[in-house]
Amino acid sequence: MVDIDGERLLTSLRTLRGFGATGSGVVRPTFSDADMAARRWLRHQMAAAGLDATIDGVGNVFGRSRNHGPALVIGSHSDTQPEGGWLDGAFGVMCAIEVARSFAEDATTAGLAIDTVAWSDEEGTYADFLGSRSFVGALSAADIRRANTAGETVAEALERVGLRDAARVGFESGRHLGYLEAHIEQGPRLEEGGRRIGVVTSIVGMRAMQIMFTGQQNHAGTTPMVRRRDAGVALFEYCVRLRARLEALAGPTTVWTIGNARLEPGAESIVPGSAWCSLQFRDPDDHVLDAIEAAVAHLAAEMTAEGPVEVSASLRRDRVPPAEMSVELRRHLIAAAEARVPGAWVEMPSAAAHDAMVLTGTLPCAMVFIPSIDGISHDFAEDSDDDDIVTGCQVLADAAASVLRG
Amino acid sequence: MVDIDGERLLTSLRTLRGFGATGSGVVRPTFSDADMAARRWLRHQMAAAGLDATIDGVGNVFGRSRNHGPALVIGSHSDTQPEGGWLDGAFGVMCAIEVARSFAEDATTAGLAIDTVAWSDEEGTYADFLGSRSFVGALSAADIRRANTAGETVAEALERVGLRDAARVGFESGRHLGYLEAHIEQGPRLEEGGRRIGVVTSIVGMRAMQIMFTGQQNHAGTTPMVRRRDAGVALFEYCVRLRARLEALAGPTTVWTIGNARLEPGAESIVPGSAWCSLQFRDPDDHVLDAIEAAVAHLAAEMTAEGPVEVSASLRRDRVPPAEMSVELRRHLIAAAEARVPGAWVEMPSAAAHDAMVLTGTLPCAMVFIPSIDGISHDFAEDSDDDDIVTGCQVLADAAASVLRG
Repeated sequence: MVDIDGERLLTSLRTLRGFGATGSGVVRPTFSDADMAARRWLRHQMAAAGLDATIDGVGNVFGRSRNHGPALVIGSHSDTQPEGGWLDGAFGVMCAIEVARSFAEDATTAGLAIDTVAWSDEEGTYADFLGSRSFVGALSAADIRRANTAGETVAEALERVGLRDAARVGFESGRHLGYLEAHIEQGPRLEEGGRRIGVVTSIVGMRAMQIMFTGQQNHAGTTPMVRRRDAGVALFEYCVRLRARLEALAGPTTVWTIGNARLEPGAESIVPGSAWCSLQFRDPDDHVLDAIEAAVAHLAAEMTAEGPVEVSASLRRDRVPPAEMSVELRRHLIAAAEARVPGAWVEMPSAAAHDAMVLTGTLPCAMVFIPSIDGISHDFAEDSDDDDIVTGCQVLADAAASVLRG
Repeated sequence: MVDIDGERLLTSLRTLRGFGATGSGVVRPTFSDADMAARRWLRHQMAAAGLDATIDGVGNVFGRSRNHGPALVIGSHSDTQPEGGWLDGAFGVMCAIEVARSFAEDATTAGLAIDTVAWSDEEGTYADFLGSRSFVGALSAADIRRANTAGETVAEALERVGLRDAARVGFESGRHLGYLEAHIEQGPRLEEGGRRIGVVTSIVGMRAMQIMFTGQQNHAGTTPMVRRRDAGVALFEYCVRLRARLEALAGPTTVWTIGNARLEPGAESIVPGSAWCSLQFRDPDDHVLDAIEAAVAHLAAEMTAEGPVEVSASLRRDRVPPAEMSVELRRHLIAAAEARVPGAWVEMPSAAAHDAMVLTGTLPCAMVFIPSIDGISHDFAEDSDDDDIVTGCQVLADAAASVLRG
């Protein structure tokens, strides 16, 4: 066990919050002026912790320990959503730096190798998980051509912020034995269950589908009900029936969301000729995701057969499989949690995506969660108790020491 | 009975089609160049039929008979939807002119007074029923300030087309004993029933409502299903339940349409925090409309009480009551139809709105319908058989003669 400096951690977090602070929230999208200023400050903090600190060729801030490996990579991302909370990402980055500097100050841990990282563009302002995908060599030329909503590509942004010719940091197979990330839960489970710490078992898999309804556009006055092929009526019916089916298939943590729907042409006086809705679903178990995908397609075929509207469903993107966290690394986090907050920790899947999801195919990963007040995230109101922030970092530090001591 | 000239009617209709012809359809929105050219041509046609023809201060083309009254006003509108069919409105206008010129050519009818009209902006490019509302003195200063989608007001348009200082034609109480209008059905009932002529009993009443759903916006990954207040889920459920209730309340010609719906913010990864949909319903019986409106509000209150989403419903505009056609005028139309197409006519409500709806509070009105091929209207594909076009005009002429002869 090595004691971190809780006050220093909180002070650092509040300083980082100042880059892009907007009311109680933070606006620090990737490669914005605030984001780059934050990255320069983070590089300085890593250097002050005794690490060889650089901002790499995709914006990752990487602090490499001068100690010999094996090393743990610890970090999270420092960019935010367009209207982000102050802890999402930032918490995990500052925890990593606090672990590195605490270790350096303690003779029993000063020889351990902690490499810290603030990943670039986890939130996908330009390209989802840009930094962690670069780290594991999964970045394509197409990714570098991806643009933000203003139309600036990753390549153009890197040129603008002076990183075009910077080297990219990558996974070192002889050195990096695992990745640890602390994060806020972003949901209500810990708070509702009265737990202080969550040890992540897996990051849920996710699939996105689109369901299309094709009927016949008509005059809303002169077309008798029995003659109609109303795409909107079919959409409502589909969504209600689907809900009953998915409730029957769902596991305890399955979530599904119809976040968008449109009727076309969308006029009060016109029977909708076509319609569509989005469907996103997440679960830690790929079999559950398979079953949901099959149910979506089955219901579409069933309603097409019933008529009078044709229904079809298709995947909108590649399936994102569940990412299993390392059992070995979890064991260290659990031991640390039980020592610091006996009985007040729980194992749980992560319902949100994280850089650890990208890294898990390359090196063992684990994550530790702290409670989010009222479960709020991706919102200016996002917050966590100071005590939970410090406890989360302490558990992370204890686990890191335990892992590296073997 | 007086015989109209069917070939002349068809030739005139095809000429009128040329103003704004686009493929098989017509683009002739109110006060467009094509619309004004058509109105000038119609004024000429009315003058050639021996009428005192003017384009009035809101764009109505009015052909006043030089005969003493009592007079029948006969007509329809000559403007079209943004993408209109060639017969909607145009058919009734050319029928009126054909009746006037046929009457003038026949010694037995030459002394009867037929005033013809091509109403302005029935389709509401600027303001619904602009011309007929002006005729009955129901136009307000606010109407004159209404604008088209390009932002031009009625007043500006009248200035542009040189009608700012023109006199407005109005109802003459000592002269005008009734209004007759021929129109395409715009629906499938005549064709499906094998009928050639429809005699309109009433124009259905219409109400438009908006239903609002207020829940809580959340992260689609981290918010457990049981904690959600998903406005989209409530909307789908509401629409399906409403359908079952309205089916139980509906009469044989009731129609209702949910033409538009939105989930907010409408993102794949966000649980919708609010949602809304439109609802429009039409029926010839105001009691049925009352029952539907009550059912809409009742279901909203019921779902609000059930939770977790608040549902509220409100009227979007003034209620449009059903417009009863004159029993006396209908009797003449029925006699004429039975004489020309024995057994092949039917009494029916009009599911679409017409200028007769506006006029009916001021003078007795009646309408005659001809079949629409496949029930299609407000579409480039709109069409009717030549035989039906001629028959419709003939029935109208016979009825007009019968009315004026007393």
